[in-house]
Amino acid sequence: MTSPLPSAAITSEKANLEEGLAFSPKFDSHGLITCVTIEHSTSEVLMLAHMDDEALRLTIETGIVHYFSRSRQALWRKGDTSGQVQTLVTLLTDCDQDALVARVSVGGDGKACHTGRKSCFYRSVKRGENGVLALEFTQN
Amino acid sequence: MTSPLPSAAITSEKANLEEGLAFSPKFDSHGLITCVTIEHSTSEVLMLAHMDDEALRLTIETGIVHYFSRSRQALWRKGDTSGQVQTLVTLLTDCDQDALVARVSVGGDGKACHTGRKSCFYRSVKRGENGVLALEFTQN
Repeated sequence: MTSPLPSAAITSEKANLEEGLAFSPKFDSHGLITCVTIEHSTSEVLMLAHMDDEALRLTIETGIVHYFSRSRQALWRKGDTSGQVQTLVTLLTDCDQDALVARVSVGGDGKACHTGRKSCFYRSVKRGENGVLALEFTQN
Repeated sequence: MTSPLPSAAITSEKANLEEGLAFSPKFDSHGLITCVTIEHSTSEVLMLAHMDDEALRLTIETGIVHYFSRSRQALWRKGDTSGQVQTLVTLLTDCDQDALVARVSVGGDGKACHTGRKSCFYRSVKRGENGVLALEFTQN
């Protein structure tokens, strides 16, 4: 008879992760965790970005949202050049603690996208009659 | 003198990706794209998951949200066992087309999390007076 301990240990770890009060963010193989950023007052999704351990720590310590820029491979304090500083209202984690939701209020002109739009999600996917997919702008 | 073409080509590709009407989802090195799923009627974030090419195609073709389960390494038609089927209302892509937002209406009991909660984001991160981080439930 094999010991029941291994599967019991797995169950217990999963229960701690999902039902516990310990914050154990799970970073991926690149050391990053995905963060969905929401405008607190409207619940609009502004952007999706990533944090490394340092960006997450600074976000929590300072109350100003920091990310890790994958394109620049550098810490990124959002708004440093644009004035669109994101002040953290609430930081949430999901069941298995491998994703975050940051509810924020945005400084400056209140926008988040580098294209000059409020949200990065400004196009929807449409399926034409011929089955061809195309995008349609939902913000200008 | 070096040719200006390479950087011009890069600029043009970036402009097409960000301002064009062609849907060009950018899958990561595992063939996946991140999807944030939102309850359309309330704008509440329900979950964050991933789609591969097939899951994305089926989502668009059927109007029922499909994901790729990283833990099971398999196509996952959300709600098949739970009844919590997600009907797509709008699918949005972001500026660089490496993330999706699915606005959905949820069937069954209207929940999305396998723990029995409506949203996977049911705990917030709190910083204690001693600087220690802990989680606090925002849903039971």
